[in-house]
Amino acid sequence: MALEVEHKFLLANDDWRGEIDHSVHYKQGYLSSSPLSSVRVRISDKQAWLNIKSATIGSHRQEFEYEIPLNDANSILDELCHKPLVEKIRHFVYRDRHVWEIDEFMGDNQGLIVAEIELSAVGEAFVRPDWVGMEVTDDIRYYNNNLCKHPFKDWDK
Amino acid sequence: MALEVEHKFLLANDDWRGEIDHSVHYKQGYLSSSPLSSVRVRISDKQAWLNIKSATIGSHRQEFEYEIPLNDANSILDELCHKPLVEKIRHFVYRDRHVWEIDEFMGDNQGLIVAEIELSAVGEAFVRPDWVGMEVTDDIRYYNNNLCKHPFKDWDK
Repeated sequence: MALEVEHKFLLANDDWRGEIDHSVHYKQGYLSSSPLSSVRVRISDKQAWLNIKSATIGSHRQEFEYEIPLNDANSILDELCHKPLVEKIRHFVYRDRHVWEIDEFMGDNQGLIVAEIELSAVGEAFVRPDWVGMEVTDDIRYYNNNLCKHPFKDWDK
Repeated sequence: MALEVEHKFLLANDDWRGEIDHSVHYKQGYLSSSPLSSVRVRISDKQAWLNIKSATIGSHRQEFEYEIPLNDANSILDELCHKPLVEKIRHFVYRDRHVWEIDEFMGDNQGLIVAEIELSAVGEAFVRPDWVGMEVTDDIRYYNNNLCKHPFKDWDK
């Protein structure tokens, strides 16, 4: 179990693209998202994970993650997860001893790009690059389980 | 992934107690039970599992099971699962090349005893011992996720 301390931001401009270290394609779906927790299955290239998160709103949440067989993950995504599934390219940017994960969504969430930084403790200081825009950590619309129920294409923008 | 073919029965009498091979204490809870699936955490003595089942009513269902660390399971049960948790003693009886699992429930489900046989294929023949009573495979009240939401003590009997 890990306590997850995460901050989430919109992007102010496209300058982060010049700093991408590598990118990974993710397909994921939710078995459930209740008032207490969410249970997610994620496939990236040739690996798959089952992830359980507490549903606390804000920057720190309990998280449990277990690798599972790829075949199991495909069956669970196809047959047991709520639709639509969420697909995105995650771009990794290394900056000042931190990792920025920049999610560029596809499908029903096309057009949405979100940057996340994971910290090792609540209140840990971090450098905010110029391409980082408004913080949306506490805005539940940007939670991946909500992007499945209420995708970006349907938002009032 | 396994396709689970299971039949569930009430008990006609107590004669099965003389045939118990061994018994295990289980504590379990549900992270979710949706129209598509249920996600369960179960602790038995010193092991713990995460279990995902399709929510099909009846004798065969898809099932995925992964062992997880005991500490994780305790945290998930305490903090993320719906209450009340389900506790039971599972008694194992070996009969005619099949295993009967006889669940004797505790707490809010005290008084309920259910026998299950797992088959390797739909339609596989099995011997029905004299102590086996009415079949309740298709009665969703006896599903363990429902015994959490609507325990035996609250049933109209």
